[in-house]
Amino acid sequence: MDELTSVFGVEEKPDATNADRLYDALVEKLASPEFSPRQLFERFNIEVLCTTDAATDTLEHHLAIRQSGWTGRILPTFRPDAVVNLDAPGWKTNIAKLSEVSSVEVSDYNSFIRALELRRAEFKSIGATATDHAALTPFTAELSAKEADAIFQRALKGKSDADDSSRFTAHMIMEMARMSIEDCLVMQLHPGSLRNHNDVIFQKFGPDRGADIPLQTEYTRNLLPLLNKYGNNPRLTLILFTLDETTYARELAPLAGHYPALKLGPPWWFFDSLNGMSRYFDQVMETAGIYNTAAFNDDTRAFCSIPARHDLWRRASANWLAGLVVRHVIDIDDAHQMISELAIGLAKQAYKLNIS
Amino acid sequence: MDELTSVFGVEEKPDATNADRLYDALVEKLASPEFSPRQLFERFNIEVLCTTDAATDTLEHHLAIRQSGWTGRILPTFRPDAVVNLDAPGWKTNIAKLSEVSSVEVSDYNSFIRALELRRAEFKSIGATATDHAALTPFTAELSAKEADAIFQRALKGKSDADDSSRFTAHMIMEMARMSIEDCLVMQLHPGSLRNHNDVIFQKFGPDRGADIPLQTEYTRNLLPLLNKYGNNPRLTLILFTLDETTYARELAPLAGHYPALKLGPPWWFFDSLNGMSRYFDQVMETAGIYNTAAFNDDTRAFCSIPARHDLWRRASANWLAGLVVRHVIDIDDAHQMISELAIGLAKQAYKLNIS
Amino acid sequence: MDELTSVFGVEEKPDATNADRLYDALVEKLASPEFSPRQLFERFNIEVLCTTDAATDTLEHHLAIRQSGWTGRILPTFRPDAVVNLDAPGWKTNIAKLSEVSSVEVSDYNSFIRALELRRAEFKSIGATATDHAALTPFTAELSAKEADAIFQRALKGKSDADDSSRFTAHMIMEMARMSIEDCLVMQLHPGSLRNHNDVIFQKFGPDRGADIPLQTEYTRNLLPLLNKYGNNPRLTLILFTLDETTYARELAPLAGHYPALKLGPPWWFFDSLNGMSRYFDQVMETAGIYNTAAFNDDTRAFCSIPARHDLWRRASANWLAGLVVRHVIDIDDAHQMISELAIGLAKQAYKLNIS
Repeated sequence: MDELTSVFGVEEKPDATNADRLYDALVEKLASPEFSPRQLFERFNIEVLCTTDAATDTLEHHLAIRQSGWTGRILPTFRPDAVVNLDAPGWKTNIAKLSEVSSVEVSDYNSFIRALELRRAEFKSIGATATDHAALTPFTAELSAKEADAIFQRALKGKSDADDSSRFTAHMIMEMARMSIEDCLVMQLHPGSLRNHNDVIFQKFGPDRGADIPLQTEYTRNLLPLLNKYGNNPRLTLILFTLDETTYARELAPLAGHYPALKLGPPWWFFDSLNGMSRYFDQVMETAGIYNTAAFNDDTRAFCSIPARHDLWRRASANWLAGLVVRHVIDIDDAHQMISELAIGLAKQAYKLNIS
Repeated sequence: MDELTSVFGVEEKPDATNADRLYDALVEKLASPEFSPRQLFERFNIEVLCTTDAATDTLEHHLAIRQSGWTGRILPTFRPDAVVNLDAPGWKTNIAKLSEVSSVEVSDYNSFIRALELRRAEFKSIGATATDHAALTPFTAELSAKEADAIFQRALKGKSDADDSSRFTAHMIMEMARMSIEDCLVMQLHPGSLRNHNDVIFQKFGPDRGADIPLQTEYTRNLLPLLNKYGNNPRLTLILFTLDETTYARELAPLAGHYPALKLGPPWWFFDSLNGMSRYFDQVMETAGIYNTAAFNDDTRAFCSIPARHDLWRRASANWLAGLVVRHVIDIDDAHQMISELAIGLAKQAYKLNIS
Repeated sequence: MDELTSVFGVEEKPDATNADRLYDALVEKLASPEFSPRQLFERFNIEVLCTTDAATDTLEHHLAIRQSGWTGRILPTFRPDAVVNLDAPGWKTNIAKLSEVSSVEVSDYNSFIRALELRRAEFKSIGATATDHAALTPFTAELSAKEADAIFQRALKGKSDADDSSRFTAHMIMEMARMSIEDCLVMQLHPGSLRNHNDVIFQKFGPDRGADIPLQTEYTRNLLPLLNKYGNNPRLTLILFTLDETTYARELAPLAGHYPALKLGPPWWFFDSLNGMSRYFDQVMETAGIYNTAAFNDDTRAFCSIPARHDLWRRASANWLAGLVVRHVIDIDDAHQMISELAIGLAKQAYKLNIS
């Protein structure tokens, strides 16, 4: 509703009788110059917007924006799932594309790593400050270079199995942390979604059609190898997301409170909501503290929902802080500082957006 | 207390000094004509009461009620656990009884299925609108007819093992969904209770003596085969219950929000309580919406607790809606419509009780 | 803050500008006679303080307190983790120490059990009322004496493996319950912490340096063997703790509501906090009732935090009860009785501290 009212000026409550009329009015507005993405970007007062882009992306649209002379800050984010997860659809084609865009002939594990490092450098040169990684679980484990290459070779021959994929992804998450320590790109990890649950939808319409369902997720044991190796390294920022709220108080807040490299991302997806935020404040903040979180960034595909999402987070934050003030847990000075951090400061710092 | 006060007119607070006197007074009242089940049914203003009945039940008491001329609407519910779960106590005797009541000689998997279909038809002919299924987990998986028959034959010879039982139950849950699509009986599934946890009680007093303890339950993967095959079918209504509240926001609400065939049952058993309802509203409704739930039906064995249970649900619902109204999430018109649906509309619709 | 203000009389809000000055003032105060442990014990009005002591502890400090003529009640607690968990660091040395302090030559399973029984008797003779047991999981399972001895012999030869350790601990938890039934020591079990998660800290500073991270924990199946054998025994008090709040409503409250031998310990560690207590009241009490809990005992190593911890619990309890009173769930007389039980009565009773 806030989106309809604030962005599109609709004052009526939508119902069956006005649906068609409202729809037509919205279509007309969206076609008008004031509703072009760049106009909305400026009207929404967005400081920076990051896209997620495949490791094989040519980034031509990012280059086009830069060359257009428009000064809106739009940055790419390096998302290599389609080449590091061996069971990704079209993996071999993706590897061929990776060879092409990186100018590295990817024929073994070493050349694969070299291609990824080059692409990260390219993303960084065009403004990227972060990478983004999905995985079914947060399982991490290091392979020897020899073992990694053996799996990679099997995958190239189409002979890798589910266990290979799982171990290779676990290894590559650790490799990505290593690269982040070298190039300082912030690393984001969001595990725990079973993609394309509804096969009828998948067969008819393809992937990513709203049929992704959360899974129970385990972080304490799964992240042990990565955190033991890199968790104390001040050059790493690893931002964790979850779709399993039971891990907030039990695993994520204690881990984020302990390891300098860890920060918690905001409540995500189904939990990017008023109740989701309230449960996040209740279960995360006592143990982790706000300064071990990245506060709020949205990951919407619905451009016009951006103002409402940030507005909701800021109101929810203010509401939570006001509760702490009236119960004398913090004083009003603390609250003023904390609301500024929650609204904007922590996110900019976590994602290294102050250094342009 | 509400039951004591509203049903039995007890105005004193029960304590050690008045316990015997109150007990005797209740026994006397219960023996009086005004406290007969039929009188209470009318006084409680119950529109419909469904019993759960074994697949082998002769339904003679249901027939007796019909023949008595009393117009209270009492319907049977088809509960085949004791014949579809191979490890149910007395399974072979139950199969013999199934042969008897269905007039189908159950000697293999095909005749077993035929007998079940006939019994469902008989339940339906006497007014049943639903079936009810317990299982240790919501594991579903389809067997070939050949494999199903092999397991069934092993079970008849007393040679099936725990794995057979688990796979056969998983298969039969899918078969029950298939039959529901054919005969339109609403399917209820309530997994996650470890029955008869206290062996001392079990040996002394038998099953179902209050020693059933909940288990962690997984729905996203376990229901995948069933939902992929039948979840988009508009003829199926599958109502899910849980004893693991961690699945509300993580698995059940997203699944119910996605699949047309799914609805969520009310907070059950230990969670049929004020706090249980409050957590249910908080964690389910934002993602699933009330229209993907069956609102409230109780499953009590304590007849006199029925008014208090529904009263509590309705007050908890009103309280939740009032909170949404004062925070301007919904308006008062929405609230009026939603309280009516939550109190009565959704349950009647989900269980197909409007068509008599 | 409460600790700084109430115990040390600091009235300023600590910040970077006054940190050094405040620190120096605290050091000075702690060195003064009024801040000696015995003075603080009396000033804090502590009735009884229990330490946890290894099974191999000589208890000389406890004896010294007794011989000093000081009347503060300080009791030992029997904590045998380092000898019953075969994978404890230095296990063989611990066994040698056990032989020494018990004067039983521990050379096999039988002598091991005899030594433990003797030490429990010694702890009890000096005032102990309880034992304390940590374990990675609450897995319980009984071994035959022969099997237990075979594992013990392998361990003595340094040839036991992870499976041996897990099964031996599972067995020893049951043995500890058996001994508790015999000697009436209250048994405490707190599973679910992965110790020394951060290997860098562990290598540099050793164990127990704040890097313990909670794990998902399962009680319903794991405790089945123990509860089936001893759960109905009125001589056993088993107090369960958890770091997995998802088990409160699903497993622990139903188990504690059912088994006479079980009580639930207070919210522990990360959950010994205002929000942690609020979730505990919300999720435990409706099903278990306060009388199946041990109310509150703290397990702090920070002596000066004791008053603040108990004060917080009492305020949180009063706040919860007040909510029940204003919603007419309980009346004010119930609340008066319950707050007294929650503040002090239940803990003293559960830990058998009334009988000195």
